[in-house]
Amino acid sequence: MEVGICKQDMLQKKKNAVLVDGVILNGPIMDSKAGEKFVEEACKIIMEEVIQKANDVTEKVCEWRAPETLKKILDLEMRDTGESHQKLLQLCQDVIQYSVKTSHPRFFNQLYAGIDYYSLVARFITEALNPSVYTYEVSPVFLLVEETVIKKMIEFIGWEEGDGIFNPGGSVSNMYAMNLARYKFCPEIKEKGLSGLPRLVLFTSEECHYSMKKAASFLGIGTENVYFIKTDERGKMIPEELEKQVQRARKEGSAPFLVCATAGTTVLGAFDPLDEIADICEKHGLWLHVDASWGGSALISRKHCRLLHGIHRADSVAWNPHKMLLAGIQCCALLVKDNSGLLKKCYSAKAAYLFQQDKFYDVSYDTGDKSIQCSRRPDAFKFWLMWKALGTTGLEERVNRALALARYLVEEIKKREGFQLLLEPEYANVCFWYIPPSLRKMEDGPEFWQKLHEVAPIIKERMMKKGSMMLGYQPHRGKVNFFRQVVISPQKDSG
Amino acid sequence: MEVGICKQDMLQKKKNAVLVDGVILNGPIMDSKAGEKFVEEACKIIMEEVIQKANDVTEKVCEWRAPETLKKILDLEMRDTGESHQKLLQLCQDVIQYSVKTSHPRFFNQLYAGIDYYSLVARFITEALNPSVYTYEVSPVFLLVEETVIKKMIEFIGWEEGDGIFNPGGSVSNMYAMNLARYKFCPEIKEKGLSGLPRLVLFTSEECHYSMKKAASFLGIGTENVYFIKTDERGKMIPEELEKQVQRARKEGSAPFLVCATAGTTVLGAFDPLDEIADICEKHGLWLHVDASWGGSALISRKHCRLLHGIHRADSVAWNPHKMLLAGIQCCALLVKDNSGLLKKCYSAKAAYLFQQDKFYDVSYDTGDKSIQCSRRPDAFKFWLMWKALGTTGLEERVNRALALARYLVEEIKKREGFQLLLEPEYANVCFWYIPPSLRKMEDGPEFWQKLHEVAPIIKERMMKKGSMMLGYQPHRGKVNFFRQVVISPQKDSG
Repeated sequence: MEVGICKQDMLQKKKNAVLVDGVILNGPIMDSKAGEKFVEEACKIIMEEVIQKANDVTEKVCEWRAPETLKKILDLEMRDTGESHQKLLQLCQDVIQYSVKTSHPRFFNQLYAGIDYYSLVARFITEALNPSVYTYEVSPVFLLVEETVIKKMIEFIGWEEGDGIFNPGGSVSNMYAMNLARYKFCPEIKEKGLSGLPRLVLFTSEECHYSMKKAASFLGIGTENVYFIKTDERGKMIPEELEKQVQRARKEGSAPFLVCATAGTTVLGAFDPLDEIADICEKHGLWLHVDASWGGSALISRKHCRLLHGIHRADSVAWNPHKMLLAGIQCCALLVKDNSGLLKKCYSAKAAYLFQQDKFYDVSYDTGDKSIQCSRRPDAFKFWLMWKALGTTGLEERVNRALALARYLVEEIKKREGFQLLLEPEYANVCFWYIPPSLRKMEDGPEFWQKLHEVAPIIKERMMKKGSMMLGYQPHRGKVNFFRQVVISPQKDSG
Repeated sequence: MEVGICKQDMLQKKKNAVLVDGVILNGPIMDSKAGEKFVEEACKIIMEEVIQKANDVTEKVCEWRAPETLKKILDLEMRDTGESHQKLLQLCQDVIQYSVKTSHPRFFNQLYAGIDYYSLVARFITEALNPSVYTYEVSPVFLLVEETVIKKMIEFIGWEEGDGIFNPGGSVSNMYAMNLARYKFCPEIKEKGLSGLPRLVLFTSEECHYSMKKAASFLGIGTENVYFIKTDERGKMIPEELEKQVQRARKEGSAPFLVCATAGTTVLGAFDPLDEIADICEKHGLWLHVDASWGGSALISRKHCRLLHGIHRADSVAWNPHKMLLAGIQCCALLVKDNSGLLKKCYSAKAAYLFQQDKFYDVSYDTGDKSIQCSRRPDAFKFWLMWKALGTTGLEERVNRALALARYLVEEIKKREGFQLLLEPEYANVCFWYIPPSLRKMEDGPEFWQKLHEVAPIIKERMMKKGSMMLGYQPHRGKVNFFRQVVISPQKDSG
């Protein structure tokens, strides 16, 4: 087989054609040279239109079009015959133009932002290599990298040993943890299921991520068996309330098995008091999972890691380096304190076609059977290359800077007329109302709040149509719509 | 803010520094120009070492190193300080060198292979844009693309309408389906859980993918409540056996709710008789899920779609375009016949911070609440761009060619001494024994089979250490280790 095909070759081949079922089998069907050229040309567009513009604040953060309009602009239909390279490159341009630039310095819409060049290179490498991380034979480098990264993350949690797995999202990490806690509580559930068992009950704060409910429903536990614990005015779980609810569950005859604390809640950025929660878990023999998907990155900072004080007492931790650390979506680890193989025991299905035991190497490196997935992406690798490039101090600087920017923003909000802070943040979530001039002299009362509620969506609409900024807003626990600004892009400054 | 930083700017800035918590906040902390240059240099390496070598059969498919050796070669440790670009580029080279080339024409180790340049470009675009597909405001293009692709896939299944979602793997698709069938059977389980309910039972063939067991255990149903249905000698589910097992479950007082048929089993590539299974499902009111993760791509071929005859009667289908169609890992859709919003009802958690109802656009485009994930990758896009590029006929050619190559391989195996076919394949899985000269004259008997069992691992070891070929093998249902060769790379020919 040769690289590329020329016409003469093709003619020669047709003469000696190996024809099976009407298909000519000698010679590849793809023109590799043309394909490579297409990749090169597209890469130029990506470099110019996405990467180089990523930190240009004069560009629009989005080029808003309503769904029906965008459908008309984009030629979405897939047809019988293919398109020319020229047309395809134009399509790529269009896709880029109308996509949100999540790396734009003024993208504050979610809990991720910015661009990291090293992580990006790692992602290009893995897309080109197209590995699947289940066995050492297919993914030797990526499995070793995952092992190394997990070990390092465990160090920052403060465990002496542990286990873990990268998986597609903090929501999935939380599911992993919930199932693991259940398995630890009663291993027979793996085979027997929940039918006929007493009601399993888990506890988490009112401010937890919505994936807790999704997980409880998916795992057959039921959303009603998630007992939501009251939080204080800062959004932190109240340990005394947890104690009460555990006792209530016991009295009801149900089976408490898990407490999910949150380190960095989605809206307010609150950290549950892990140490006190761990005391209660210890007392009642409950698994402690910490959803640190958002707040976990503070562990990297010597200045801010105190936010997660007590995390070393957790049984499992979810931590997403794709958020504040910019590893690129998705990069999410579930980390487990147990090092006796609990993860594998809980998840293994021992597929004989994949996890053969008579391989010529140490099959303990075939870690794929710890996963709920079969094919799995090498998400640890992008975090690893980024960490190699920046060093721990570089990652630490990223965290310190994000929190300093939050501090700065808070002080600016306090100084400026028409802006009102919701609360002093302890993390990077700066929550505030913008009160337009027309409402500034209005009396406090239901009408004021109802009118204020309508402000954020309108301003957001204006900003998005202008393409000037994207900013999250939400109502939250009785509070009317307010903005939530999270500044993590290393390209963003105080300007 | 400017693109790039020069030293003079930095000095000027230091003078007017905005200092918060010891962090200087004016000016970005990243040198974008250097970052962009790094990306460019790395892209050159990726182009030369991965993409251009992808179809060069004279290259090694893998550069085998045992785990302990590879750990010594790679500098895996993450340190306090970062590495130079030069060192990082060398690391990238090393990672590529010791990674398996899954796009190599002689990579037959799994059910995916080859390289598709269009899908690859799409993946580079999405890595650079770093979107998350939950709301239209953040992912306008990718949500419309997903809608279009799902609609098209549904057309090929033969449904008049439907719904669907891309997710991280066929295993996860099967979990989605299992939970959906359960929700349809008894919606209260979402809130109440399984506790106190009769035992839910599902049916699937002995040859099904191992994710069925994983799913049953993860969803709290329990692996023992998966009733495995006997298959015929070709690996197809026997409908009469299914009927018997459903009746047995009813007699036991358990609650049958789901039949999972397989279209393209992992090892043998067998297709369950969907039409007859659908009859039984209809009769008993059971949800029919078809795991067509592997076999679904045959739907694109007018010649081979008959393999899935009856699939239009399914309630849900799992189909992975990352396998035979080469869309890149991962690209997996769960498709659902229901178009009344069942998927959303079953999965929604209505997070107020993400799925605000007072947005300025039609929020029915915010489809993220149909997912078990929060952040989600735009996996439909790579399939879409590839489809645009090749057209349906190009995809069809890919399938026809893979099956013609299987046919060709089968005929060659029949002709060649020392090769023995396991069975006539109906799909692309060519399963065979290689009988070395030393065993060819041996009498049939336990000793022969025991010795033959040891052959495949040894040959595989030799091939991997040489880097000449990667080929899957496994024991299977009483049969000793045999090779399973699946030829799908468009770069592979009959040579």
